Amino acid sequence: MTDKYTTLVNQGVGKTIAKRLGLPQPAVLRRFKPGQPLVTGPVLVQGNTAGADELAAKLLSWDLDVRRHAVPREKLGAIILVLDELTRPEDLEKPVLSAAASLRDLGPSARVITISRPAAETASPAQSAARQGVDGFLRSLAKELRAGATANGIVLAEGVQSTSPSALAALRFFLSGRSAFVDGQFLTVATERGHLPPDFEKPLAGKVAVVTGAARGIGAAIARTLHRDGATLVLVDIPAAGDHLAAVANEVRGTALQLDISSPDAGQRIIDHAVQRHGRLDIVIHNAGITRDKLLANMDHGRWASVLNINIAAQLRINEALLASEHFRNSPRIVSVASTSGIAGNRGQTNYAASKGGVMGMVRASAPLLAVNGGTINAVAPGFIETDMTARIPFAVREVGRRLNSLQQGGQPSDVAEAIAFLASDAAGGINGDVLRICGQNLVGA
Amino acid sequence: MTDKYTTLVNQGVGKTIAKRLGLPQPAVLRRFKPGQPLVTGPVLVQGNTAGADELAAKLLSWDLDVRRHAVPREKLGAIILVLDELTRPEDLEKPVLSAAASLRDLGPSARVITISRPAAETASPAQSAARQGVDGFLRSLAKELRAGATANGIVLAEGVQSTSPSALAALRFFLSGRSAFVDGQFLTVATERGHLPPDFEKPLAGKVAVVTGAARGIGAAIARTLHRDGATLVLVDIPAAGDHLAAVANEVRGTALQLDISSPDAGQRIIDHAVQRHGRLDIVIHNAGITRDKLLANMDHGRWASVLNINIAAQLRINEALLASEHFRNSPRIVSVASTSGIAGNRGQTNYAASKGGVMGMVRASAPLLAVNGGTINAVAPGFIETDMTARIPFAVREVGRRLNSLQQGGQPSDVAEAIAFLASDAAGGINGDVLRICGQNLVGA
Repeated sequence: MTDKYTTLVNQGVGKTIAKRLGLPQPAVLRRFKPGQPLVTGPVLVQGNTAGADELAAKLLSWDLDVRRHAVPREKLGAIILVLDELTRPEDLEKPVLSAAASLRDLGPSARVITISRPAAETASPAQSAARQGVDGFLRSLAKELRAGATANGIVLAEGVQSTSPSALAALRFFLSGRSAFVDGQFLTVATERGHLPPDFEKPLAGKVAVVTGAARGIGAAIARTLHRDGATLVLVDIPAAGDHLAAVANEVRGTALQLDISSPDAGQRIIDHAVQRHGRLDIVIHNAGITRDKLLANMDHGRWASVLNINIAAQLRINEALLASEHFRNSPRIVSVASTSGIAGNRGQTNYAASKGGVMGMVRASAPLLAVNGGTINAVAPGFIETDMTARIPFAVREVGRRLNSLQQGGQPSDVAEAIAFLASDAAGGINGDVLRICGQNLVGA
Repeated sequence: MTDKYTTLVNQGVGKTIAKRLGLPQPAVLRRFKPGQPLVTGPVLVQGNTAGADELAAKLLSWDLDVRRHAVPREKLGAIILVLDELTRPEDLEKPVLSAAASLRDLGPSARVITISRPAAETASPAQSAARQGVDGFLRSLAKELRAGATANGIVLAEGVQSTSPSALAALRFFLSGRSAFVDGQFLTVATERGHLPPDFEKPLAGKVAVVTGAARGIGAAIARTLHRDGATLVLVDIPAAGDHLAAVANEVRGTALQLDISSPDAGQRIIDHAVQRHGRLDIVIHNAGITRDKLLANMDHGRWASVLNINIAAQLRINEALLASEHFRNSPRIVSVASTSGIAGNRGQTNYAASKGGVMGMVRASAPLLAVNGGTINAVAPGFIETDMTARIPFAVREVGRRLNSLQQGGQPSDVAEAIAFLASDAAGGINGDVLRICGQNLVGA
């Protein structure tokens, strides 16, 4: 799964040569496998608030090695910095310098996770400054960590506890190998909704999930991951992808639905198929998308309209059908695949970036509509992911795209799939209208 | 003012060699000089809404060459894309493809400017998608433009007209050479407040402005620009910078105030000086700041606390004094200098990024407090700017910092100063709590 270069510079002679020449030495990332421990060593919980105490107690109940103070020279799996009661910028120093003193003890693929509050939700300039300061701090730290370690943050809306279901679920996601390629990012827990699963290895047990564009690449990885997590699957792709679709469906013991998602009745056909074949519909993953790259000066109707139609207009129509259906009202989940191109733009992708920006706008505006039935809608924004599509990019451009992030490598389709599986779970019920980047903290242009 | 490399590859043999070798060929940017025309050629206003019609009429009244339809092979100074009535993603195609057809007619340092509405301010998923699509589109286009041309957007809050004072002022800013190094960015006009100046060349006439850290670099450039725009100046810096401070004060015919901004009475001393020497206080520019770079693993109390204290805690204390003063209640303006490091983080700058993130949090939370008296508070976030400070960065790192943006060069201190002068003007009264990046669309890491 890891690209050839990363394999080469992590073993034997290749490692020595890369070191001598000062070449990038991307680490082999820790990725989740069933049965694997959540984290690779003791977890240091720093911060003197009630939230920190409660969180430490909760982690102990999960049989983790929890430390409230650093033990000299002990290798750590993670540092959790609880910053949920900041009132002014000066409050940052003590917890931050305590964490600094333990940074050298972090093992490979370790984690630093902040827990803070939203800057937008306070009327005090000093408190807002302290809270937004966490953002600048964490994104800098993510650029300093090495050996596959990452830094990410959980932002608890005012009144949400550090031990609320989605806060704990987000913490588990960030601690685990599921978040291997997520770096320098924040997840916001907006409400106390959601509940932790009886079995953390099967968080989607009993759920019926639809994945569009499931015949290959990221879509197929999503199908495999949701299946591993216990979901029953409906796999959608265009008729031309029929053989690949059937193979994936067979592999994950799901059903295949050949369908052009841009047809006017696509939403109803998805609902009918799921209900008739599997008796229910809980989760829809909007993964299908196309690119038709061209500089804007050479853009034509065909390229513009097809990308906008497939990537956003079709999702809007399908969501309308879902929201109108009585079969999609029991804590439903929608997760859409956006792109860092939609956030920062990309040369040659005005059409694609408009459509993926559109996905994020749609997700934010749809969140209250889903919340009515205890549901959520969120997006993931992948950066450079190693797929057949990116394999066709010319070598030099591909190498730049791959290395220009804090982890110095491209992500795997499974990295996108893991984030989607997390957002689709019951435990993530307090996360709604959010966008999570899966990009290794890609330098995409602000 | 332009760096040596940019000068070299824009003339004679250097130009030919750079082209043959495929080296970056940054353009010499059009920068504002008094008396200069607002824009370098006819302005094409595209869009079929009432807002587009009213805007075109207004631009005509400014004696600009305005086109409502492209004239074949005519070189254009700017394209304004009015997208203020989008209801769904499909609405983007017609105006975008019309603009595409005119892109080849853009002259050097031309402008593309979108005018749209905030995605967050609509309950309709389709409308939110269309609005957020403008963001992805514009940021992509900014990465495609060449020869010093830029693309930026104006976002009009619901109910704000395209011809409101701050919308027109933002449009003039983006059209002009004042925005040379602003690229791929949006300014939000939140209210109809503000009024255009009687003389566009002296927008700060009659105002008394304080600039901290004014002895050199960006601070001195801010002083010169505010002076050029008509303001009377109070220049603040530490006693150790006394000689430089006196020289700048002499140059701009202002008064010097030697002051450590982190002293508890700094705010009151600034107010007293301005009122006693100049009779009033209208504008405060928080420019003073320090860096004490160190990886977090090596961070100590001195480096952390001094950066947080000077860069954010001092601003908070001074603002408290300003907000409590009866002398700062007549449409007051505060503009703070943040940094792209505060947005995206930077290796070795956990302290600096926390402080500059803090500045942005402070600005957002302070906006309603300033609005009470018709005032505003905003921030600018510079990227790589050519100063004595950046000249000390090792060559290779500096070259990467300089070229890794859509304009392939560092900005000038005057670029930061121009944006600050704009935000400090009466005309910008409808822009409050915003952060404007001045970074050439820097790839800073999302």
